[in-house]
Amino acid sequence: MLQLKAQLGGDEGKHVFVLKTAKETLTGKYGEDSKLIYDLKDQGGELLSLRYDLTVPFARYLALNKITNIKRYHIAKVYRRDNPAMTRGRYREFYQCDFDIAGQYDAMIPDAECLKIVYEILNELDLGDFRIKVNDRRILDGMFAVCGVPDEKFRTICSTVDKLDKMAWEDVKKEMVNEKGLSEDVADRIGEYVSMQGGQDLAERLLQDPKLSQNKQAFAGLTDMKLLFSYLELFQVTDKVVFDLSLARGLDYYTGVIYEAILSQTIPASVSTPAEQNGADEAGVSVGSVAGGGRYDGLVGMFDPKGRKVPCVGVSIGIERIFSIMEQKAETSSEKVRTTETQVLVASAQKNLLEERLKLTSQLWNAGIKAEVLYKKNPKLLSQLQHCEETGIPLVAILGEQELKDGVVKLRNVASREEVDVPRADLVDEIKKRTL
Amino acid sequence: MLQLKAQLGGDEGKHVFVLKTAKETLTGKYGEDSKLIYDLKDQGGELLSLRYDLTVPFARYLALNKITNIKRYHIAKVYRRDNPAMTRGRYREFYQCDFDIAGQYDAMIPDAECLKIVYEILNELDLGDFRIKVNDRRILDGMFAVCGVPDEKFRTICSTVDKLDKMAWEDVKKEMVNEKGLSEDVADRIGEYVSMQGGQDLAERLLQDPKLSQNKQAFAGLTDMKLLFSYLELFQVTDKVVFDLSLARGLDYYTGVIYEAILSQTIPASVSTPAEQNGADEAGVSVGSVAGGGRYDGLVGMFDPKGRKVPCVGVSIGIERIFSIMEQKAETSSEKVRTTETQVLVASAQKNLLEERLKLTSQLWNAGIKAEVLYKKNPKLLSQLQHCEETGIPLVAILGEQELKDGVVKLRNVASREEVDVPRADLVDEIKKRTL
Repeated sequence: MLQLKAQLGGDEGKHVFVLKTAKETLTGKYGEDSKLIYDLKDQGGELLSLRYDLTVPFARYLALNKITNIKRYHIAKVYRRDNPAMTRGRYREFYQCDFDIAGQYDAMIPDAECLKIVYEILNELDLGDFRIKVNDRRILDGMFAVCGVPDEKFRTICSTVDKLDKMAWEDVKKEMVNEKGLSEDVADRIGEYVSMQGGQDLAERLLQDPKLSQNKQAFAGLTDMKLLFSYLELFQVTDKVVFDLSLARGLDYYTGVIYEAILSQTIPASVSTPAEQNGADEAGVSVGSVAGGGRYDGLVGMFDPKGRKVPCVGVSIGIERIFSIMEQKAETSSEKVRTTETQVLVASAQKNLLEERLKLTSQLWNAGIKAEVLYKKNPKLLSQLQHCEETGIPLVAILGEQELKDGVVKLRNVASREEVDVPRADLVDEIKKRTL
Repeated sequence: MLQLKAQLGGDEGKHVFVLKTAKETLTGKYGEDSKLIYDLKDQGGELLSLRYDLTVPFARYLALNKITNIKRYHIAKVYRRDNPAMTRGRYREFYQCDFDIAGQYDAMIPDAECLKIVYEILNELDLGDFRIKVNDRRILDGMFAVCGVPDEKFRTICSTVDKLDKMAWEDVKKEMVNEKGLSEDVADRIGEYVSMQGGQDLAERLLQDPKLSQNKQAFAGLTDMKLLFSYLELFQVTDKVVFDLSLARGLDYYTGVIYEAILSQTIPASVSTPAEQNGADEAGVSVGSVAGGGRYDGLVGMFDPKGRKVPCVGVSIGIERIFSIMEQKAETSSEKVRTTETQVLVASAQKNLLEERLKLTSQLWNAGIKAEVLYKKNPKLLSQLQHCEETGIPLVAILGEQELKDGVVKLRNVASREEVDVPRADLVDEIKKRTL
């Protein structure tokens, strides 16, 4: 029961993680993505919005409840006024699964744990090859400074850099120059940096960069990046983690490390709609990001009346996207995905045995066996067996006059069709043994 | 993963069980409770509401996806514009846990399963004594007819009868006469019926009632009630189930059997606020209904363009109320409720062992052990042990220079303080054995 509660978001889910949230709670946290917030009006006329992610409500929860240390996960729906793309698992309303660590700790230890968790999940789910890109907002800011971007344009240029996963550099540069008013020079200098990828070695090399290393922000970010990779080494996840200077992430609230996990696999072009193939190569549509996150040390303070900060780092997993990939995988494979865990169907071959079937079903339920019975007075044996085949129930417990007289049940293996008479007293153990 | 998905409401959660729902979807389903629906306006100006329960979205899902057979559970939030009462677990936003069986089956078999499930849950959770009241909308309608209530007043009188769990008969009668315009005679005749409680015997007795048995609706309801009790007998749950003619349930969509589970336990007056004690006896506040449901054979048809019906029966479990009772129980008992499942904390007694702690933690994670490590470079052993005591972690794996040299880990039982050196190769098995 406690576990169930944890899955629902724990205690904190009860009052504060409201889906319906005052619009001002969300204002000023999402940068240019703010246009995707669903705004609503309630009966009282107060301006309300649907929550955009689980991070802002979490930060607000910590501030309102004066919590300074917590590690928790939370699975719940969020809303984006975006263009949906069904086959890629991109919806306007979708579940996210968030994991966050809040508290004042030594540098990069919780950050490394978040990356380890993303690695574990993607590895375990067997979704094919993946990459986890890592960067740091302080490195980006330092880079913008040494490239000559004016301070007040850091956030908006950051949003433009963030588009590099969907747009070519040429187009990103055009936006920087034409829309955001950077000079060509400055844009080109950014272009050099954002083409860099590596690991601990890149962090070390950039710490030698005469300009970057002189910038306080960049120096702090690069030192932490080096430390992060040393922990990732201990966690044995560096084979998939890349320090990538083009990773920006659009949201305003990040203050340090940021990361994003990308599956290498593409969806076959045949199952994606033409609209979804825009910008995709001919081989198919890239699934794109399935997890992302970072450090947000200032967000809790924005909700605290005295501005008290609680450093936080976390990750959001796009479980709907992951499900949509798993479903497509299941569709193309011959394996049928079972949707129930039923161990046995209680059936009968003769008429007028409903009461005996219900009695046995109840006994099995009481013994902790996952049992089903068809809700018919006199179902045909064939339809009972077909139900098992369709739903993947592995065993049938068959009752007949003779079995009742003998005190046994005929236990049938649906796949092999093998049948054996089992004494009533041994039935529970026999079912458990055969459905382990 | 599939299990996780089921907990999120399964496939159906993805598109159709939207929380934000067009207002017209909810209109005309909840009777007088409709005033509790949260209405919202989205940016486009379309009238929207927050879902009121999980039943209406489920019915809509079946209709839109042409599903004629399904058995599923769904845990999610619903919204009521009601007066909250925190200590009783009554919120404006709260989780419900619904179980429903849809499909054309033989009478009362799925209905009996729903009651069995409510019984099992309340029994298993050990929340003290409880009662499950059962009635049938057809019996109520038949009763209203033979008492002389005009047809068009059936639903509104039903809502008034529903208040009998909170109001005395005198006040309910007053509402029937003064507000709903019934004559005293008619109200008194209703009063006689709604005082009746029993089991299968009451159904049999009422089938002999010359007026009721002549009414088609009542006859069908009573015949089914008798059958239902025969199945409940087989399921061995009749000790808690009461056929109670005063049970009405306010919602419009029920068409047959209805039920409601009530805990006998009260919350001590000391923890309830004065406002919540209105109408409660001095001993404390009654928790009231923790589960309810019934048969709704017409609801799916309301969403089907051709009006095709899918008979359904289901139950909603008020898990927040149940949690609030369990929490109060935990508070008054000396047992501390653990909020994590962590099996072991990886600790060290000396400085400069962070890397070794992280390496061991990662190894334990990879072996499926729930391990934690403090996010500090050099935490004190005492603070590591205190963390275990506070959070209930039963084991500490302690690393030191000597242990590293010897290839062992000191495994400490937090409660008994007993320590034993375990070879690294045996550590996983040892932890599993001690935390079974």
